[in-house]
Amino acid sequence: MSPFRGSVPFTERWENFRLERADGVATVTFDRPDKLNALTFDAYADLRDLLTELPHRGDTRVLVLRGQGRAFCSGGDVNEIIGETLKMRPDQLLEFTRMTGAVVQGMRECPIPIIAALHGTAAGAGSVLALAADFRIATRAAKFAFLFTKVGLSGADMGAAYLLPRLVGLGRATQLLMLGDTVSAEEAERHGLVSELVGDDELDAAVDRLATRLATGPAQGYALTKELLTREQDMSLSSALELEAVTQALLMKTSDYAEFHAAFNAKRPPEWRGR
Amino acid sequence: MSPFRGSVPFTERWENFRLERADGVATVTFDRPDKLNALTFDAYADLRDLLTELPHRGDTRVLVLRGQGRAFCSGGDVNEIIGETLKMRPDQLLEFTRMTGAVVQGMRECPIPIIAALHGTAAGAGSVLALAADFRIATRAAKFAFLFTKVGLSGADMGAAYLLPRLVGLGRATQLLMLGDTVSAEEAERHGLVSELVGDDELDAAVDRLATRLATGPAQGYALTKELLTREQDMSLSSALELEAVTQALLMKTSDYAEFHAAFNAKRPPEWRGR
Amino acid sequence: MSPFRGSVPFTERWENFRLERADGVATVTFDRPDKLNALTFDAYADLRDLLTELPHRGDTRVLVLRGQGRAFCSGGDVNEIIGETLKMRPDQLLEFTRMTGAVVQGMRECPIPIIAALHGTAAGAGSVLALAADFRIATRAAKFAFLFTKVGLSGADMGAAYLLPRLVGLGRATQLLMLGDTVSAEEAERHGLVSELVGDDELDAAVDRLATRLATGPAQGYALTKELLTREQDMSLSSALELEAVTQALLMKTSDYAEFHAAFNAKRPPEWRGR
Repeated sequence: MSPFRGSVPFTERWENFRLERADGVATVTFDRPDKLNALTFDAYADLRDLLTELPHRGDTRVLVLRGQGRAFCSGGDVNEIIGETLKMRPDQLLEFTRMTGAVVQGMRECPIPIIAALHGTAAGAGSVLALAADFRIATRAAKFAFLFTKVGLSGADMGAAYLLPRLVGLGRATQLLMLGDTVSAEEAERHGLVSELVGDDELDAAVDRLATRLATGPAQGYALTKELLTREQDMSLSSALELEAVTQALLMKTSDYAEFHAAFNAKRPPEWRGR
Repeated sequence: MSPFRGSVPFTERWENFRLERADGVATVTFDRPDKLNALTFDAYADLRDLLTELPHRGDTRVLVLRGQGRAFCSGGDVNEIIGETLKMRPDQLLEFTRMTGAVVQGMRECPIPIIAALHGTAAGAGSVLALAADFRIATRAAKFAFLFTKVGLSGADMGAAYLLPRLVGLGRATQLLMLGDTVSAEEAERHGLVSELVGDDELDAAVDRLATRLATGPAQGYALTKELLTREQDMSLSSALELEAVTQALLMKTSDYAEFHAAFNAKRPPEWRGR
Repeated sequence: MSPFRGSVPFTERWENFRLERADGVATVTFDRPDKLNALTFDAYADLRDLLTELPHRGDTRVLVLRGQGRAFCSGGDVNEIIGETLKMRPDQLLEFTRMTGAVVQGMRECPIPIIAALHGTAAGAGSVLALAADFRIATRAAKFAFLFTKVGLSGADMGAAYLLPRLVGLGRATQLLMLGDTVSAEEAERHGLVSELVGDDELDAAVDRLATRLATGPAQGYALTKELLTREQDMSLSSALELEAVTQALLMKTSDYAEFHAAFNAKRPPEWRGR
């Protein structure tokens, strides 16, 4: 997971969300419950930077995103972001919108699987953060609203017009992004936007179960599954086949692959080392 | 919406379908009910040309496609088109098939949202017109039949092999295009091909509701949601993120975006001006 | 179907699966039931080579893949393949993984429609063979397991990370390929991975019905539907429209297209000749 690191120090304290680490699982908790965890400029910057340095640390196998209080994340704060952007010059606006895109690029290109734990509203940028995760575990109380057109912007925000059609199809993505209406977790699950629908009091257990599984499994295999799923969304079939061929040949030289074979023949579970 | 216009006059009368305009909504009605609204060479040419000039007029916010009588549109007329093509040279055939493709390109690249109102059969090219719309509102009596192989042609017609897999997935698109069988509105809805399924006598109201909403909403936001959904079907993630960043920065300079913020803080609904 | 053939002889006997031919339908039966039809290096090579020469023979309109015994195909044999790859050099591994990719490329680029007949487990490479077919007819006893990460490899194997998201969406594909868990035929059908779900004793009849239909229909229309569905997964809309325009113009010069018109006016079913 990119252990090369030069002069840049690791960040000691993340000031715009809570970050906990345990057993290879890093958990980001959006923690402004009185604002339904609305994002600020600084929160975007911290997400961007966390996604850059997390894979360099070598101690993280899974990233979980969750929200404190009633909501997962209600997106950009109406006054702290929308109000401020009204005063900005074009170059400043572009720096801001590029930063939000960099968060999504970081999520998709990060070799660490990301789980969004959804128990309430994911709105605007909050919906896109959930969308850009690899797994979305949701309770029936969760809901999505890609409400960008409702503030006068394009529904294509932070890669939503790229990602959403690839999850739910172009027809449904058109409805969701053009109209910005709220979608329930049940409907989202039916259409492929929710990975796992759980009871209201089962979310923590379901997230822990998946996070533990991903944290203790064959990390290289997971990382290169995610990487290729991301890359092959815009490659030709023949290039994709070549990329899969070289990737798989590389993985056949890992100790985890040999361990599988030894464990299989010894009729015991493999002990994955992630290398 | 591309107000630049040189010497080319607007068309006074469309002779191959009915066209009505009201409150920003243009409605095309295929009107050969005795032929189940089969298309002729001239009807394709008129659709192509309407899609070119409609965005230049500046008076249209939504386009609705519908059919008079029992069908939505039964596709190319067996004698007026298929019979005639049998007499054509290769260069003439290619001019015809390119024209049909230009209709779909016009629908997808037109900044105006398009609603297909489906109350009966959409067959052949009629199915593809519905597919190329942004929204498909259908009654339970509606049905689709991409019946091109049944006339000895390729199921890939007018972009169907590009668009349909992106709405319903490659497996289902293979069935529909290879076999050409009829699909009910219920099944189409389940698979993402119908946006909204309504009762038989609720179609007009549902179409009016959506058309009015789109016609009175933030037109630039809608137009640039559609545009990016179309473009990002074949872009890389990083290029898509850049396109979304510059688009959103541009929209943050519109008066609709400022209006949202003012309305939000005044606790009143925004008055969208579409600019 | 590519009748040009130089010095290369046709293969007399396929030693690594059963091959039967009847009425334009070639049927490959994986026939190592005691090993759940696990694949060997030679079986991959034979699949690759069969897909190369089958379209040259001119006698095959449909290819059916099926398995003898309890399983469809359990993928690469744990000892005959996994054990052997542990002893291989990087260049040898790459030759192997490229060969498996060539099988999928052959399946997707072959002008002959391919039906996977699924009555039991399709695991690992067996799942990808089913995925790369055009039609998947399955009984309720069928199941899929893209179990590559469970052996320490990437879930992106043989094009799975390219194909699966295009059938079931990126979210569901991430679950299936990252985790490698088993999916029932019912769930696969709901998500677009199974084309037709049939009762346990109805599989043969359903496969025969579809194979006969494809074998006796307008073969050029079918072949060019498949071809364009494959190609247009990674083309721009405007290039796709041009490809469809020239393809359709070519097909309008076939005798099958004229035959449709003659039959329609004579109120009789067309007699397809496939040219």
